[in-house]
Amino acid sequence: MRAITLHGIGDIRVDTVPDPVVVDATDAVVRVDATALCGTDLAFYRGSRPAAGDQRMGHEFIGTVTETGRDVRTIRAGDRVIVPFNASDGTCDYCVDGLPTSCRNIQVWGMTPGVDGAQGEAVRVPFADATLVAIPSGTDDAMLPALLTLTDVMATGHHAAVSAGVGAGDEVAVIGDGAVGLCAVLAARRLGATRIVAFSSHEDRAAVATRFGATDIVTERGQDAVDRLLDLTGGRGVRTVLECVGTAQSWDTALGAVRNGGAIGWAGSPATRGPALADVFMRNLKIAGGVAHVRTYLPELLDDVLTGALDPSPVFTTTTDLDGVAGAYRDMSSRSTLKALVKP
Amino acid sequence: MRAITLHGIGDIRVDTVPDPVVVDATDAVVRVDATALCGTDLAFYRGSRPAAGDQRMGHEFIGTVTETGRDVRTIRAGDRVIVPFNASDGTCDYCVDGLPTSCRNIQVWGMTPGVDGAQGEAVRVPFADATLVAIPSGTDDAMLPALLTLTDVMATGHHAAVSAGVGAGDEVAVIGDGAVGLCAVLAARRLGATRIVAFSSHEDRAAVATRFGATDIVTERGQDAVDRLLDLTGGRGVRTVLECVGTAQSWDTALGAVRNGGAIGWAGSPATRGPALADVFMRNLKIAGGVAHVRTYLPELLDDVLTGALDPSPVFTTTTDLDGVAGAYRDMSSRSTLKALVKP
Repeated sequence: MRAITLHGIGDIRVDTVPDPVVVDATDAVVRVDATALCGTDLAFYRGSRPAAGDQRMGHEFIGTVTETGRDVRTIRAGDRVIVPFNASDGTCDYCVDGLPTSCRNIQVWGMTPGVDGAQGEAVRVPFADATLVAIPSGTDDAMLPALLTLTDVMATGHHAAVSAGVGAGDEVAVIGDGAVGLCAVLAARRLGATRIVAFSSHEDRAAVATRFGATDIVTERGQDAVDRLLDLTGGRGVRTVLECVGTAQSWDTALGAVRNGGAIGWAGSPATRGPALADVFMRNLKIAGGVAHVRTYLPELLDDVLTGALDPSPVFTTTTDLDGVAGAYRDMSSRSTLKALVKP
Repeated sequence: MRAITLHGIGDIRVDTVPDPVVVDATDAVVRVDATALCGTDLAFYRGSRPAAGDQRMGHEFIGTVTETGRDVRTIRAGDRVIVPFNASDGTCDYCVDGLPTSCRNIQVWGMTPGVDGAQGEAVRVPFADATLVAIPSGTDDAMLPALLTLTDVMATGHHAAVSAGVGAGDEVAVIGDGAVGLCAVLAARRLGATRIVAFSSHEDRAAVATRFGATDIVTERGQDAVDRLLDLTGGRGVRTVLECVGTAQSWDTALGAVRNGGAIGWAGSPATRGPALADVFMRNLKIAGGVAHVRTYLPELLDDVLTGALDPSPVFTTTTDLDGVAGAYRDMSSRSTLKALVKP
């Protein structure tokens, strides 16, 4: 089959690789109907995160089951499934705790050695019963983009909001106007926040943020952005900040925006050390988050997408096929594309 | 009057200083009935925290009001009062939020320049109505030691436990066998934890921990302590750790003891940078705490002390007068005394 492989910094190719087959009795093989490019893919592409040799790429996908191992009970060939960015066994203590990203047997598409990437024609999925969530048959194909966001970015924005404890009537600042930040705006609105300040200096992304529920847009950067947020809140700052970038500058903005006693929910892979305890001791900040438990959040978010209550699909600004993926990486890296959907 | 002053590292003296008087209309003057030595005092004494010239010492006390300014409404001369380690105005946005340690006009005994230390015969208390909590008249003097712990260490242990979200049935590990750590054990039990693992390599402190509700004692240190905790919990670790030391080693122990998805509540002045985000990203740890909001917690904790439900007094292992304070610093610094009570 054909699949995307990174051969070195910036070197994205469509390679011919072995067709996936059932290896373990709990496996399924899933034909990829839609996949996507993510900020984590860009980190490998740019070299800010080291790749493991020639690396299969992509970890977000929706597909159709073509084959199942003999011990797979709840999923069958023909099912259309949403796939979290990692496989989890569903039985270890952390899975039982609702922490599938801490699964004792975690496998992440394209990142765990020997595990298929999502940017290809098909994927072998271990622990199919525990990992996959079937979409009701008859679901309109037009919902695929919205459903695809649940595999990572929407669940990740939701995780930032849940980790920070966003609730009804809250005032929230969201740092980051990538797909995760925009989804965090949507998540905060869904959880009841009534004032949502989004930080974005890109008009098109700010427009998505507003559509997603942002009540205020801060277009400044750095200390000017903090000053603007403080202006908007009578000098008080906000009790809840969702940090969706992971850089030193974004954390400085988060720390400047949050009130003492408040919470910073974070959910992006960090490229900075984060705050020192001495800097937050007198401020009593709560810092909570990390990699999102997509599988745990999926049923609840899927319900809302299916009823139309939740539609994160505007984060996709372009659609391509495997041959267009190298260009999509370039465009996302230069920020001319917000997020690319790929139909292999 | 006579008061304790630090003249340089290790140089504790009883000095004669001006008698405090009412300066502002919201002031009270409080004669000190009982004060104490705290780990923070030791940090100045040892030089690990820089003193501001000759520094008045102490920040924990209970006393009797001798004079009030003309705008003081709820406190009157003759009242016996518990005094949080800082004065707070009670009216700023942070005080209204229940965050008196973020008060816009905070003054900390002995640490804010020009503010009396608690280790002396009397203290001028700004914002008397907001800062002081009266003890019901007729309260037995035998309760003074228990009540004195509420001014800092008991409220601080409670803050670690509340920040970590300790609740009924929880399994909690407490790192640190100083007065704060021991009070954190007591706080965890009070909040309903059913298994409390205390880390202590000192038999006398471990005995207090057990009396306070610890169900298990880990006497090892460093990685051995983590291994022992894991042994005790079937390799799982605990969902909640209360970090009550603030050193690099204690944080390593905390990070080793906590399960992924768990919480570290912390409440001691940190002498280490704390964990990097990259180290906790996959682990989804919640890190919450900081300086304790003593004034906010006081009414609830005071009720429990008065009914006898809460008795942290065993943290005091010696009592002295002002002339004995220099010796008490030496003994606490060498850890031969757990915590000293001072009757000026």
